[in-house]
Amino acid sequence: MLDLSNERTAYDRDHFFHPSTHMGTHARGESPTRVITGGEGVRITDSDGNTHVDAFAGLYCVNAGYGRTEIAEAIGKQAHDLAYYHSYVGHGTDASIELAKMIVDRAPDTMSRVYFGLSGSDANETNIKLIWFYNNARGRPEKKKIISRWRGYHGSGVMTGSLTGLHLFHNAFDLPRAPILHTLAPYYFRREDRSMSEEQFSQHCADALEAMILEEGPETVAAFIGEPLLGTGGIVPPPAGYWPKIQAVLDKYDILLVADEVVTGFGRTGSMFGSEHYGIKPDLITIAKGLTSAYAPLSGSIVSKRMWEGLVEGVDELGAFGHGWTYSAHPICAAAGVANLKLIDDLDLIANVREVGAHFRRALHDALAGHAHVGEVRGEGMIAAVEFVEDKDDRKFFEPGKKIGPQIAAALFERGVIGRAMPEGDILGFAPPFCLTKDDADLIVARTREAVAHVLG
Amino acid sequence: MLDLSNERTAYDRDHFFHPSTHMGTHARGESPTRVITGGEGVRITDSDGNTHVDAFAGLYCVNAGYGRTEIAEAIGKQAHDLAYYHSYVGHGTDASIELAKMIVDRAPDTMSRVYFGLSGSDANETNIKLIWFYNNARGRPEKKKIISRWRGYHGSGVMTGSLTGLHLFHNAFDLPRAPILHTLAPYYFRREDRSMSEEQFSQHCADALEAMILEEGPETVAAFIGEPLLGTGGIVPPPAGYWPKIQAVLDKYDILLVADEVVTGFGRTGSMFGSEHYGIKPDLITIAKGLTSAYAPLSGSIVSKRMWEGLVEGVDELGAFGHGWTYSAHPICAAAGVANLKLIDDLDLIANVREVGAHFRRALHDALAGHAHVGEVRGEGMIAAVEFVEDKDDRKFFEPGKKIGPQIAAALFERGVIGRAMPEGDILGFAPPFCLTKDDADLIVARTREAVAHVLG
Repeated sequence: MLDLSNERTAYDRDHFFHPSTHMGTHARGESPTRVITGGEGVRITDSDGNTHVDAFAGLYCVNAGYGRTEIAEAIGKQAHDLAYYHSYVGHGTDASIELAKMIVDRAPDTMSRVYFGLSGSDANETNIKLIWFYNNARGRPEKKKIISRWRGYHGSGVMTGSLTGLHLFHNAFDLPRAPILHTLAPYYFRREDRSMSEEQFSQHCADALEAMILEEGPETVAAFIGEPLLGTGGIVPPPAGYWPKIQAVLDKYDILLVADEVVTGFGRTGSMFGSEHYGIKPDLITIAKGLTSAYAPLSGSIVSKRMWEGLVEGVDELGAFGHGWTYSAHPICAAAGVANLKLIDDLDLIANVREVGAHFRRALHDALAGHAHVGEVRGEGMIAAVEFVEDKDDRKFFEPGKKIGPQIAAALFERGVIGRAMPEGDILGFAPPFCLTKDDADLIVARTREAVAHVLG
Repeated sequence: MLDLSNERTAYDRDHFFHPSTHMGTHARGESPTRVITGGEGVRITDSDGNTHVDAFAGLYCVNAGYGRTEIAEAIGKQAHDLAYYHSYVGHGTDASIELAKMIVDRAPDTMSRVYFGLSGSDANETNIKLIWFYNNARGRPEKKKIISRWRGYHGSGVMTGSLTGLHLFHNAFDLPRAPILHTLAPYYFRREDRSMSEEQFSQHCADALEAMILEEGPETVAAFIGEPLLGTGGIVPPPAGYWPKIQAVLDKYDILLVADEVVTGFGRTGSMFGSEHYGIKPDLITIAKGLTSAYAPLSGSIVSKRMWEGLVEGVDELGAFGHGWTYSAHPICAAAGVANLKLIDDLDLIANVREVGAHFRRALHDALAGHAHVGEVRGEGMIAAVEFVEDKDDRKFFEPGKKIGPQIAAALFERGVIGRAMPEGDILGFAPPFCLTKDDADLIVARTREAVAHVLG
C-alpha cells in the first residue's frame, strides 16, 4: 500500500495527467491538487476536511446527489455477482437487459433500442457510424455530411471534438475535420441583429441552416446534431419556436436529427428528456451523465424505430455490423443505471427539479438580474446561468483576457459553493443535483451575489 | 422491478442493440440470447445454469479471473465512500492518484504520466490528439499522418476504427479516413514470399515502412502505431527482429511510436508490458483491458518523459489543453485498477502466465500441430492461436464462406469451452485468465482437439 498521506501531491504532479488542466502550472505546483474524499446530497468533502456545496453536480452529472447507498449497493452487489461479461453476439446480463427496457420505456415513443457505450463522446462516435452505415444501406453513399452548431458540445474525440463548436476544443488539435460543418448557435442574447424577436431569430437560424444545406447540396447532408438546450456552450435554452422550425427544414431535406441529451436526459429540464420538453422528434438520442448519475461510466445511443429498421435491412444486405466496445453494457455500470433510474422515480426527483429548480432560478433572477454587469439570467428546470457584460445597455462584453467568469467562479468557490465558469464568454453556470432544497438554493444564490459583488462591485 | 424471468428474451430482442451482433437475426430470434449470471476463476455460468470454461477471458480482459472478491470489495467500498468526482483542473481521488503512480512504476522507465479514459478506443483517440498537439507545439503542423498496420486493432470509433486494419471494421462505415495509412502486417505465416526467413521478412516489413514514409514525405508522418503482438488481427507474435528494425526506421525519421498494449499490458505476454517483452521503446502506451481485469471500464495513455516535456512546452505556448472525458479517472474504476494490480502482484499471476501459459501452448502444439488442416499453432505467454488451412503443404486457405473458424469455435462451445474465432481467417484464439491451472489447460486442449475433429476430421 502506497503512503498517500505524505506523497499524494507529489504522486499527483509527477504521474497524473489531468484532463482539461493546464499541464505546466499543475506539474510545477503553481495550481492546487484537490483530492475529493466523500459526498452527501449536494455537498462534497476534500482531503483537507473542507465541505463545499456542489452547485454543478460534478460536471452536471451527479443528478441523484452524492452518497446514494441504493446505487452504491447495486454496484457492489453486481461486482460480487458478476463484474464483467461482454455483450457481443447476443450476450447480456439481467442488468443490461433491464436497463435497455427502462430507457426505451422512458424515451419518446418513436424510439426503439439502445446501443450502450461509456461516455457521451463514444455515444456520438456510434451515432456518426450509425448515420453513415444507414445511408450506405439506403443506397445514398454521398449523403454523409453532419451539421452541428457553433457552441454545441458533443465530445472530445477527433470526430466528436469536431462536432463540438467551441474553440477551446479545436485549438491546436487540427479540428474540426470534414465532413463536419457548423451553423448558427441558437443564442438569442448574443444575436447580431438586436431588433429581432425570439421567433424572428429562430426563423433566422432555420433560414441559415437551410441556406447551408442548399449550398452543400441536400443529397450530401446526412444529419444535424444539437443539444435541446445548449450546455457547455453557455447554458442557453432555445429561443421560442426554434426546434419546430429546425425540424421542418430537416424533414424537408430528409436529414436525420440527433438530439444530444447527455446533459438534458433523465430530468435536467424538468421533463424526462429535453426532446419531449421542446417538442423535438429525434432519430437518435445521445445519453450519458444522468443515466447513472455518474456513479459508473455509461452512455448510450437510443435509436428510433424508423432508423432501426433501416439498419437491420442494411445488415441483412451488407453483412455483420463491426462496431463494438469491450465495455458496452458493462454489468456494474448497467446495475448503476437501473438503481439510479429507480431512485429518480422513487424519490420523484424530477418533480423536485421542476419545483426547486423554478425557485432557484427565480431567486437567482431576483438577486442578480438588476446588477449593472449582469446581461442575462437564464435557465430551465435545474440548470441555470448568469452572463456578465461590461455594458448592459450596449450589450458590450468584457475583454476575455480579464477572465471575469473564472474570477467570479473562484470567488464563489472561496465562499463554499462550486459553480462553473463556462469556457466561451463570462458565464457562470449552475446545475445542482436534483435533490437540492430551497434552503440550499437560497444559500447558493446568496453566495453568488456576494461573489459577484466581490469581483464586480 | 421488471419481471425478467419471463420477459428477458423479449426485452433483449426488442430493446438491446448489441455490439458486433447481426442485428436482424438477433432481433428476429434466429440467434440466441445468452444471459451470463456469474463466474469463478476461469468459469462462467449462464441463466440456464450452464457452466463454460472461458478460454478467452471475456474479450481477453478478465486477466485476474472471475469472482475476485478483493476487486469487488474495492469497487463497493469506493462506491459507498465517493462514487464520482471529476478529475478536471487538478482534481483527483486517492484511488486515481495511487493508480497513476502504480502504472508508471510498472511501465518502462522512460514513461512519465497517465491520461485516463474508459476504453482502448478512447485512449487511442487521446493518443491521436496528443500526437497532433505535440507536433503543433513543436512547430511542425504538417507532420500529422499516422501509419498503422493491416490487421492491427486499435478501436471502433471513426478515427480509431480507421487505425484498425481489419475489413470488418471498415466495411460500410466509410473507413479508413485520412490521415491514416496502413503498412504490412508482421504476419510471418502469411508472408507472400515463402522463401523468406523470419529475419528477412522482418527486414521486408521495415523496408516497406521506410518506402511508405519516403513516398509520403517524412515531414508529413507523425507516428506509427502497433500492438506488440497482433491481437484481433490473428494473435500473431512478431517475427524475429521485427521491432528493432521498425524502431530504427522510426528513429531515423523522427516518428513517434505508439505501443497499443490494450491486450498485452499488465502481463499477458509473461512480461508486465509487451514493450518490455519485445524491446520496444514507445512514446505512448495504450492500456485498457488488463488494467482492471475488466471489473470496471478504465483505459489510459501512458506518456513518455520526452513527449510530456514537449506537451508542457506546448501548453505554456498554446494555452489550455481542451481535452477531457467526464469520466476520466472515475473513482470506482480507479479503485478497481488499484485492487487488480495489487492482486496480480500478490498472487504472482504473471509467473503463472509464464509457467501455465507455456504448458498450455506446448499441449496445444502437441495436440494439433500435426493435424492435416492446422497450418500453425502460435502464441506467447497466456495467449495462443491455431490457424486452419485447406492444404498444409501449399498453405492454401479455406474459402471464407465455409466459415471453418466459426464452426470450430461453435463446436468447442458445445463442448463447454469458449474460444474465439478471429475475424479475418480461420483462426481459433485463446487468451484464458492468468489463473489457469494445468488441468484446465489440458481440458481446453482436449476439447479443442475434439472440436477440430468434429469439423475437419
